[in-house]
Amino acid sequence: MILLQNVFLNNKLCDILINDNKIAKISDKISICADEVIDCTDKAILPSFCNTHTHASMMFLRGIGEDKNLQDWLNQEIFPREAKLKPEHIYPLSRYAILEMIKTGTTCFIDMYFHISETLKAVEEMGLRAIIPYPGMDFFDEKEADNRIKKATQYLNEAFPNPRIIKALFCHSVYTCSQKLIQGFSDLAKKYNTYLQIHVSEMQKEVDDCIQKYGCRPVELLHKWRVMGPKTLFAHAVHLNDDEIRLVKKTGTVLGHCPTSNLKLDTGQMSLQKYLDAGLKVTLGTDGVSSNNSLSMISEMKLAALSAKNKANSVSAGRVEDVFKIATQNGFEAFGINAGEIKEGKLADFILVNMNNQFLLPNNNLKSNMIYAADSSCISDVFCDGKPIMRNKIIPHEAEIISEFKRVCADLSA
Amino acid sequence: MILLQNVFLNNKLCDILINDNKIAKISDKISICADEVIDCTDKAILPSFCNTHTHASMMFLRGIGEDKNLQDWLNQEIFPREAKLKPEHIYPLSRYAILEMIKTGTTCFIDMYFHISETLKAVEEMGLRAIIPYPGMDFFDEKEADNRIKKATQYLNEAFPNPRIIKALFCHSVYTCSQKLIQGFSDLAKKYNTYLQIHVSEMQKEVDDCIQKYGCRPVELLHKWRVMGPKTLFAHAVHLNDDEIRLVKKTGTVLGHCPTSNLKLDTGQMSLQKYLDAGLKVTLGTDGVSSNNSLSMISEMKLAALSAKNKANSVSAGRVEDVFKIATQNGFEAFGINAGEIKEGKLADFILVNMNNQFLLPNNNLKSNMIYAADSSCISDVFCDGKPIMRNKIIPHEAEIISEFKRVCADLSA
Repeated sequence: MILLQNVFLNNKLCDILINDNKIAKISDKISICADEVIDCTDKAILPSFCNTHTHASMMFLRGIGEDKNLQDWLNQEIFPREAKLKPEHIYPLSRYAILEMIKTGTTCFIDMYFHISETLKAVEEMGLRAIIPYPGMDFFDEKEADNRIKKATQYLNEAFPNPRIIKALFCHSVYTCSQKLIQGFSDLAKKYNTYLQIHVSEMQKEVDDCIQKYGCRPVELLHKWRVMGPKTLFAHAVHLNDDEIRLVKKTGTVLGHCPTSNLKLDTGQMSLQKYLDAGLKVTLGTDGVSSNNSLSMISEMKLAALSAKNKANSVSAGRVEDVFKIATQNGFEAFGINAGEIKEGKLADFILVNMNNQFLLPNNNLKSNMIYAADSSCISDVFCDGKPIMRNKIIPHEAEIISEFKRVCADLSA
Repeated sequence: MILLQNVFLNNKLCDILINDNKIAKISDKISICADEVIDCTDKAILPSFCNTHTHASMMFLRGIGEDKNLQDWLNQEIFPREAKLKPEHIYPLSRYAILEMIKTGTTCFIDMYFHISETLKAVEEMGLRAIIPYPGMDFFDEKEADNRIKKATQYLNEAFPNPRIIKALFCHSVYTCSQKLIQGFSDLAKKYNTYLQIHVSEMQKEVDDCIQKYGCRPVELLHKWRVMGPKTLFAHAVHLNDDEIRLVKKTGTVLGHCPTSNLKLDTGQMSLQKYLDAGLKVTLGTDGVSSNNSLSMISEMKLAALSAKNKANSVSAGRVEDVFKIATQNGFEAFGINAGEIKEGKLADFILVNMNNQFLLPNNNLKSNMIYAADSSCISDVFCDGKPIMRNKIIPHEAEIISEFKRVCADLSA
């Protein structure tokens, strides 16, 4: 048992008892003989963030090919570098990404990349949560679809008894994956009662090409293929028309909003407020660093709020409460994780922020300060599943993680 | 003399000698008996930022009235609180703002507020540079215009022999100031060879009202009134048509771009790339925290880049080099300050960043990392005019500045 003493929760001082991996009790004063008592004077507790779309291992690509158009950026810069990646690079790259996530208050992420056993290892070791999907991409090759489905089945069958990790599936997109692969993965996800992630309608061209090829828009296609539902996450989902919004709502499909990436790659600007008003389940993601170039959900919240106001032409779009919620509670809820709020009975995933930090004063509105003013310097402690994964700004093995990352980057740029 | 040893400059290791307030020498190896030698192993040097539009003393308003429409926000939230401000509040508020600026790497700011002698005191004491304009706002009251012009003349006449501070003038806007005041201030600025700042075309309504009242657009009006020129700064300048862009170019008038504020208050989105392509002198500002809500130029650069791409529908808008330049060199140049670049003969205004910081790796593109990934945690040292104003993350009197700020906020919310 861990006892947090004198911590600010919703602007009131209280004590909070963590028992095992849960928030067991919240009260003005808790007198109990805990294993550890943490003095939280001048600290506030907030739910940690859930980053619902990223590509953790792309860390080595930060800052590469800036300001180039999408095709040149991919073909001249990203793909040739990714081609050098070997499985053994993924573990140090994932650890580095996780370091950045923890420093910026994230305790759960949904990844989309390859060589996933290496990412699993890093997540297990560093103590946060992750949804790690088996990768699906076949470039319309039937044999490859079969192969992927077979291997994905193996992956889901293997025991992996870590409660912080959810095994799932992803299909890259309707423009890189065959109907066979997408439906195969969707059926598998249903059979194993897990999650399926897919990039959907990130670019207008993707929508146009889909209409050309299949005679309907991507969301309509995925609905026809029975891929939609509350365990399916559509990453990006920028270009949805009103019919598609209704389909998303009806099926309870989850959306992963990536505002920075969408602006940086100029793929469009999601109508966040319109989606929220329609009752869609929107979550927030940073995408990979090659198109952000940060894994900070703090910075992502600011972009989500500002982009929403700009898109809706309204200051009351992208409201503080809504933006904070899509970055926390909505993400955890989408993956059936009982976290994202500081309440008794919830999983103990949280951050402690220093209320004397420059950026958190005055304390007129803590959530607004977190969205618009805060940075990593505000966060002193990060807990996941009841255990500290950063204490007093210290993450175990940080120096080694950084030096290993530098070694891999040097290796990959050689 | 201060010697920086082993510092990265443009990805090469070198030594840099600071003599008095200037960068005296940059060389592979400098052997000299300096007063102080700073070991810069694993640190890079970059120019510091120049924040060309802010209202420093509004710090107490951070997080107030979020998501309200402009009129309710101003009338219900901002104005009633500002009405409680007394001159003695301004010094502690300014010091707090300057603390945030220094932590985020700014060594020069252009303020726009009242009770300026208190702000001057804070700037003098904390060691950065500022342009402090005498305030002009008369709500079309002729007597008040005369009064302001008289007092502004007094202000410019008073000796203030601090080379880090430039006395200047501001008129709030064409919708709050009479022709008499604006032209009076403009003439005064010319007479005293100093700078004039004015909010211009921040909102579409401002343009429409100006046409209604004066029969022409704000920039055309200010041109007619002979207010434009290289010593005039137009803050915001969101809504300029092609004729106005030509007038800005022809007169060499400087623009102060505030992308976050413009998106947050939904006043519009400046065409940064179009302005840069037209050869306009664009600088960057955060505006006050009540509409940002941060004074970080790092965060502002990210918004400038992303907003430019979005507005131009082009990934090659808001390029790394351009955005970094508007946040540094362009700002200093606009105010005749020989800083903003790390070159021999330049004023020694610079920051040192930790190249092992999480957000600055990999070092594929340092400027891109500063724009898109960095936060205050990356900056270890800030120098202004050859002197350290933050060393190893320590700013003198920080605890006292924070406690005084909290006292003032409590006082103002009582």
